[in-house]
Amino acid sequence: MVNTQELTVETTGFCDIVDITDDLREVVKGSGISSGTITVFCPGSTGGLTTIENEPGLQKDLPEFFETIIPSNRRYHHDDTWHDGNGFSHLRSALIGPGITIPFVAGRLTLGTWQQVVFLDFDNKARRRKLVLQLIGE
Amino acid sequence: MVNTQELTVETTGFCDIVDITDDLREVVKGSGISSGTITVFCPGSTGGLTTIENEPGLQKDLPEFFETIIPSNRRYHHDDTWHDGNGFSHLRSALIGPGITIPFVAGRLTLGTWQQVVFLDFDNKARRRKLVLQLIGE
Amino acid sequence: MVNTQELTVETTGFCDIVDITDDLREVVKGSGISSGTITVFCPGSTGGLTTIENEPGLQKDLPEFFETIIPSNRRYHHDDTWHDGNGFSHLRSALIGPGITIPFVAGRLTLGTWQQVVFLDFDNKARRRKLVLQLIGE
Repeated sequence: MVNTQELTVETTGFCDIVDITDDLREVVKGSGISSGTITVFCPGSTGGLTTIENEPGLQKDLPEFFETIIPSNRRYHHDDTWHDGNGFSHLRSALIGPGITIPFVAGRLTLGTWQQVVFLDFDNKARRRKLVLQLIGE
Repeated sequence: MVNTQELTVETTGFCDIVDITDDLREVVKGSGISSGTITVFCPGSTGGLTTIENEPGLQKDLPEFFETIIPSNRRYHHDDTWHDGNGFSHLRSALIGPGITIPFVAGRLTLGTWQQVVFLDFDNKARRRKLVLQLIGE
Repeated sequence: MVNTQELTVETTGFCDIVDITDDLREVVKGSGISSGTITVFCPGSTGGLTTIENEPGLQKDLPEFFETIIPSNRRYHHDDTWHDGNGFSHLRSALIGPGITIPFVAGRLTLGTWQQVVFLDFDNKARRRKLVLQLIGE
């Protein structure tokens, strides 16, 4: 069985960390699929999906980490093409990856207690995003 | 339904960025599967899969980024084992990951307009690669 | 068909590299599923999954790489919350990602000859981990 849905999230951009764990839990429960995987995918090249313990400390550490390895105040060749100043957003997205696949069993995501699924919006402006959620299972 | 295929790509190595989006589109269309996921996997430890806007600026930015965090002109312990000078290739592959899973719906990949699926060949020579494409759906 | 299992691994933490390739091979063989994907997922926010050639050189290079980009001897805001000194572990996990999805065909994983599936334990202590292995296929 395949079940595909859309999740709309409003973000502030600039490495905004959006916790979508509860949304995924509801989608899994309402899907009619007991066990399988849910794939969350961002149709766009300036977002990323991963998991993290979504607490106030790491909410600062993660953006600081990205500033260290892919600074936002540097010029990138991407600007020669579009002049939109978000080369850093594209590189961060390519690094983290646009999707994540998580198993669920008996209607429950197999996450750890302190582990949240987060959408990272790396773009340099606020965005309204539509994420694809696709469940495959039985 | 499961449908597995192979995609052969010729690369120049050294962070060659190979856009395989059109290949995936064709495979999805011809698969007889309407909705599901396609998993692209590189059997090899010096390649990676991700998405990016595949335009001339980022085609320079991405290799420059990898040179910054995992330089190719440094010596790695990997050389003590094989003396093939591609320790940086292995580290970059482990970082980006050897595969990607993308949902498709009604025969169409759920990619953004400016988002391409790319195979990154991190090896230090030209390669002929066989990527695994596996579709699961209904 | 969906088949979910658990794999227990004992780790030493501190970027311990645990080769789980043979475990996955056995699980695939015994699953009764011929072709499909296996998703390995770490329920926890200080572990990661990827592939690498698991040889003595890279076993040193990989931890050294993580020390370079996310040092363990720095203070992170995460410490203000929990005082457990493992902010670096969380960041490394978010970077590498908590899961991996690998196709198998006719009972065989589609890995390269020198490519191993590894669980990376980034935590700052020895851990007993239960990884989720989920096979979907036919």
